[in-house]
Amino acid sequence: MIIQLQPAIQEQDKQKIVAKITSLGYKNMEVKTQRGFYLIGIGKKEFDIRQLGHMQGIADIHRVSDEYKLVSSKWKVEPTVIDLGDGVIIGGGNLSIMAGPCSIENEHQVDLTINHLKENGVRIMRGGVYKPRSSPYAFRGLGIDGLKMWHERAKAAGIKIISEVMQVSQIEPMYPYVDVFQVGARNTQNYNLLDELGKVDKPVMIKRGISGTIEELLSSAEYVFSAGNEKLILCERGIRTYEKASRNTMDINAIPILKSKTHLPVVADPSHAIGIREYVESIALASVMAGADGIIYETHQKPEEAYSDGQQTLDFHESTRMVRKLKKAFELLNSEN
Amino acid sequence: MIIQLQPAIQEQDKQKIVAKITSLGYKNMEVKTQRGFYLIGIGKKEFDIRQLGHMQGIADIHRVSDEYKLVSSKWKVEPTVIDLGDGVIIGGGNLSIMAGPCSIENEHQVDLTINHLKENGVRIMRGGVYKPRSSPYAFRGLGIDGLKMWHERAKAAGIKIISEVMQVSQIEPMYPYVDVFQVGARNTQNYNLLDELGKVDKPVMIKRGISGTIEELLSSAEYVFSAGNEKLILCERGIRTYEKASRNTMDINAIPILKSKTHLPVVADPSHAIGIREYVESIALASVMAGADGIIYETHQKPEEAYSDGQQTLDFHESTRMVRKLKKAFELLNSEN
Amino acid sequence: MIIQLQPAIQEQDKQKIVAKITSLGYKNMEVKTQRGFYLIGIGKKEFDIRQLGHMQGIADIHRVSDEYKLVSSKWKVEPTVIDLGDGVIIGGGNLSIMAGPCSIENEHQVDLTINHLKENGVRIMRGGVYKPRSSPYAFRGLGIDGLKMWHERAKAAGIKIISEVMQVSQIEPMYPYVDVFQVGARNTQNYNLLDELGKVDKPVMIKRGISGTIEELLSSAEYVFSAGNEKLILCERGIRTYEKASRNTMDINAIPILKSKTHLPVVADPSHAIGIREYVESIALASVMAGADGIIYETHQKPEEAYSDGQQTLDFHESTRMVRKLKKAFELLNSEN
Amino acid sequence: MIIQLQPAIQEQDKQKIVAKITSLGYKNMEVKTQRGFYLIGIGKKEFDIRQLGHMQGIADIHRVSDEYKLVSSKWKVEPTVIDLGDGVIIGGGNLSIMAGPCSIENEHQVDLTINHLKENGVRIMRGGVYKPRSSPYAFRGLGIDGLKMWHERAKAAGIKIISEVMQVSQIEPMYPYVDVFQVGARNTQNYNLLDELGKVDKPVMIKRGISGTIEELLSSAEYVFSAGNEKLILCERGIRTYEKASRNTMDINAIPILKSKTHLPVVADPSHAIGIREYVESIALASVMAGADGIIYETHQKPEEAYSDGQQTLDFHESTRMVRKLKKAFELLNSEN
Repeated sequence: MIIQLQPAIQEQDKQKIVAKITSLGYKNMEVKTQRGFYLIGIGKKEFDIRQLGHMQGIADIHRVSDEYKLVSSKWKVEPTVIDLGDGVIIGGGNLSIMAGPCSIENEHQVDLTINHLKENGVRIMRGGVYKPRSSPYAFRGLGIDGLKMWHERAKAAGIKIISEVMQVSQIEPMYPYVDVFQVGARNTQNYNLLDELGKVDKPVMIKRGISGTIEELLSSAEYVFSAGNEKLILCERGIRTYEKASRNTMDINAIPILKSKTHLPVVADPSHAIGIREYVESIALASVMAGADGIIYETHQKPEEAYSDGQQTLDFHESTRMVRKLKKAFELLNSEN
Repeated sequence: MIIQLQPAIQEQDKQKIVAKITSLGYKNMEVKTQRGFYLIGIGKKEFDIRQLGHMQGIADIHRVSDEYKLVSSKWKVEPTVIDLGDGVIIGGGNLSIMAGPCSIENEHQVDLTINHLKENGVRIMRGGVYKPRSSPYAFRGLGIDGLKMWHERAKAAGIKIISEVMQVSQIEPMYPYVDVFQVGARNTQNYNLLDELGKVDKPVMIKRGISGTIEELLSSAEYVFSAGNEKLILCERGIRTYEKASRNTMDINAIPILKSKTHLPVVADPSHAIGIREYVESIALASVMAGADGIIYETHQKPEEAYSDGQQTLDFHESTRMVRKLKKAFELLNSEN
Repeated sequence: MIIQLQPAIQEQDKQKIVAKITSLGYKNMEVKTQRGFYLIGIGKKEFDIRQLGHMQGIADIHRVSDEYKLVSSKWKVEPTVIDLGDGVIIGGGNLSIMAGPCSIENEHQVDLTINHLKENGVRIMRGGVYKPRSSPYAFRGLGIDGLKMWHERAKAAGIKIISEVMQVSQIEPMYPYVDVFQVGARNTQNYNLLDELGKVDKPVMIKRGISGTIEELLSSAEYVFSAGNEKLILCERGIRTYEKASRNTMDINAIPILKSKTHLPVVADPSHAIGIREYVESIALASVMAGADGIIYETHQKPEEAYSDGQQTLDFHESTRMVRKLKKAFELLNSEN
Repeated sequence: MIIQLQPAIQEQDKQKIVAKITSLGYKNMEVKTQRGFYLIGIGKKEFDIRQLGHMQGIADIHRVSDEYKLVSSKWKVEPTVIDLGDGVIIGGGNLSIMAGPCSIENEHQVDLTINHLKENGVRIMRGGVYKPRSSPYAFRGLGIDGLKMWHERAKAAGIKIISEVMQVSQIEPMYPYVDVFQVGARNTQNYNLLDELGKVDKPVMIKRGISGTIEELLSSAEYVFSAGNEKLILCERGIRTYEKASRNTMDINAIPILKSKTHLPVVADPSHAIGIREYVESIALASVMAGADGIIYETHQKPEEAYSDGQQTLDFHESTRMVRKLKKAFELLNSEN
């Protein structure tokens, strides 16, 4: 159960509500976000909701019996819209395209990429400065200095930045230089990281775990939301299956299912989902047609020379063609609905 | 290695070629289909292909080192086109829509469905008369009498029939009444059935196994082709994974991968791939956008009363809307290429 | 619901029972096996079981609400014991070891293998004469002549034969020469084959499907049982997962779960379950310790020269050592219980 | 390539070696652990190893081309043995049993458990004070105060403690109170945490990821080792598959495979691997028989009242019986080898 409280509720009124729902057999948890103030009633109980409805300080009440509550569309029907500023908006009928290299490598690469994005009307640039690598001997990214260099150039060009944060201690240094924090697939259930990102007032995009379920992804979002941050984006990036003809198995089913279960925007990552350059476009188009609010993909001026993930990275020519097609597909889909 | 022989090759010339490739270290197998005559050289050897090229009776030679050879696009670049007659064509730039109930139930249902298909310009009707059921106590279909009843009505309406064959002994009785034999997901590796379907001169659509790999699907097609039948269609219908939010996990990656690896038409089955009625349209649209040559799906006048699979079956209203959208998406995709 | 009928029940008494359970809202199916006569009531209904208990001709009544009923231990608590004759017994506190090559190759191989089995007190020999192969160009087995040759030698040595049947038409020719029919992992849901094996009076061992669930394996056994054959053995042989360090993933959990859910004997196949020769012994030992009634594994006089599966096949030295250890482990386990 | 340096190597000698391997085309990384000093040569190159062998300051050289090097048995054939003090030793022919509740709950529970362990000769107690929970509204553990309370009692009883660390900031406060740090399945690829645990001089047990591969588990161990900590234990705890009859699928294959690929001790967690109380014993016995160096499992004085994981937790009676059987099985296995 979610009880939305009036922002200016008096402490004594809140205490009365807490006492009431406790007496009904619920455990409860107070959630204050940048956008609202909630009491979450945990448990499943039968009672007449009118017993609560008239109480002082309550704005609204919703029954939600899923494990995830605040991210559920059963409560909040209106889709969440995230405004990055300068007219860059995620969700709410916009197609958000986020493109860039796997790893930020150097100034030249950043300049070329920004230029390419601008030519194609892409407003959000992706790139890693902290890279989770399965081998301790692999390239781990340029770190905070790389991020500062990138930020300076992107800001000048009006391009927003999304970049992966791998641990709690990186949040503060990264904060001034990113527009969206990305939680990677290996950290989807790093609950300490999620808790801390709940205290930040910048958007967070959570990637589905390598073999995470849809429900686990929603529960991870619930962590961040219940810790205070409502500006959340979910990202389907393929799951691990027995099939080895592709890097991962794109779970295209997850797109309409997530869009139905939650009010949060849903983005697809075709680069990781299939992992083979020549098929990235097909999966991106399919994702848009399945209802995705955005596409995040890898592009590089010379994919064969990229520090990482070159085999799934588009060159700028392929990237340009794909962006054009994605926009047409999105237009068709929306004209039809 | 595939050696295409001239149709009118002399026996002694063929013997010389066999002797030659044996001396090169290949095992070989002769394949005569309704469309061509081939020698398959099995093994991987290094030699100068010009040693063979000049020999009498050879039309063409192709090196193919995959386990599957005759279904590979490395050999036959031109897409396979399958003509069902009366202007109904699968592959070759057409979008083939196949719709109908999970099970054929009775005359009334068949009449209503045919009527619905005609109104929407759908030319191929699906339906099961032999149903593979995990429980021995469940409805197993109307059998051959149901097929005859259905055939009579479909033929009168100019509608083609695709229906599942479960065992060798059903091939002959079904033969006069189906336009396409369907091999179900539980029979993808029933090699005896595949062998026998290779001797038939009607098209065969092979569904991917419940947890079959893309390579296994191609190898199953190779069985039918090498036994004599080139008129093959492949069908992606979702795979079994750990995710339980949907019935199966649609492997959308398989669409572009199969389209690249084989010359055979590729069809998607969104009904089984997601298994939830309200999301079937999204998956069908995604499949078309990923490059599928066709969509096979379940529709019923009253899904909630269907004998089987009602939870994933569209009603006629939903079906009509989806067909309209699929056509527009297919048009957009092709206008772009 | 399972109603065990008295073997000599009068037709009119049976009709009364059928009428009664129909009136209670059950569908029903009559099952006559070589060992018993049953009415299966399909559906879930609430009623006082005493309404039935007093009726003429009823031996016993059991409520079983699983999809599988006759193979359930909820009905038949006593473990099924299968007597192959000559003192060779499967189930009931015996450890059944079945060993032999993947494929029967020639007389010499058969003689060496029989000799090896006799030296180690192994009474059942495995071997394929019909081989399901994913490529149509691979060796498909010696066929019925190979089986006859093998049978002649095995019979003379007092060794029993288990061999895979791939299709309905092979049942009759194989019948005189096998002691146990094996249904392979690709045919676990070949329902026509299961139905026909239900009419045979020789034991059937059903392997779990390549990615079959435990429940599906039990349902496949229900097919054979409900078609008339109670002499069934289940075999865990590993499942398909994302892990590629082994050929399959041995589902050791399935052993105690199956032993608890069904009265049928449960055998493990460590050769296919791990697929790597040097580790087969560890998995076989683990399986015995988890409660398996038997082990079926591959052995060959020269594994590196075997026609198929050589990489997972033990040589006779390894086989001898393993059999000795398996017996000790089985003994320990039983002394403890 | 691993170059073991002499502990007292002179800086200038080390520089010469670095220069030499750089000139051969290797990247290199210096690794100093509490036990040794290594240069890791990264890359695959062909050269005559004698070019290096004679150089001053080198103790030994090993070619290892896997992604993981320092944890590989190709380099270090001798099994790693970990001494927790007071005669509690993991690896090296000992069977290490670690038992206790899922969550530490209160003093009474701790006292009862310690008593139970002592009666059965179990020297290591498991228990969580920081609990990773998929829902933000669930019990998250007693935290550091719970750990201190537990430690005081355990120390007095001569019982060692293993407990999960979830994030970098917990390492320091936990350090005085644990004997083994446990990395949970959701943190197997939390590389920052692994890096930091590499700087600690207490043993670390790494659980396999929820859908981690065997190779990824070894790579995670390589992280900790290459950051300085050689005292590592690996733990198989079941993987995520499509099968839902058990909580996870115990990958019993992983036991002999890991024992062969690495010199580190390998422990099995049957409680999580099957997740059903009545079958935990069977999986524990199977794991010992497959070669595990230890078993970690959940026990509680009243499983049905446990704060978490009650459905897979043994009561003390079951626990006592299992420990007795495990010891006998371990004895049998070793007497045989």
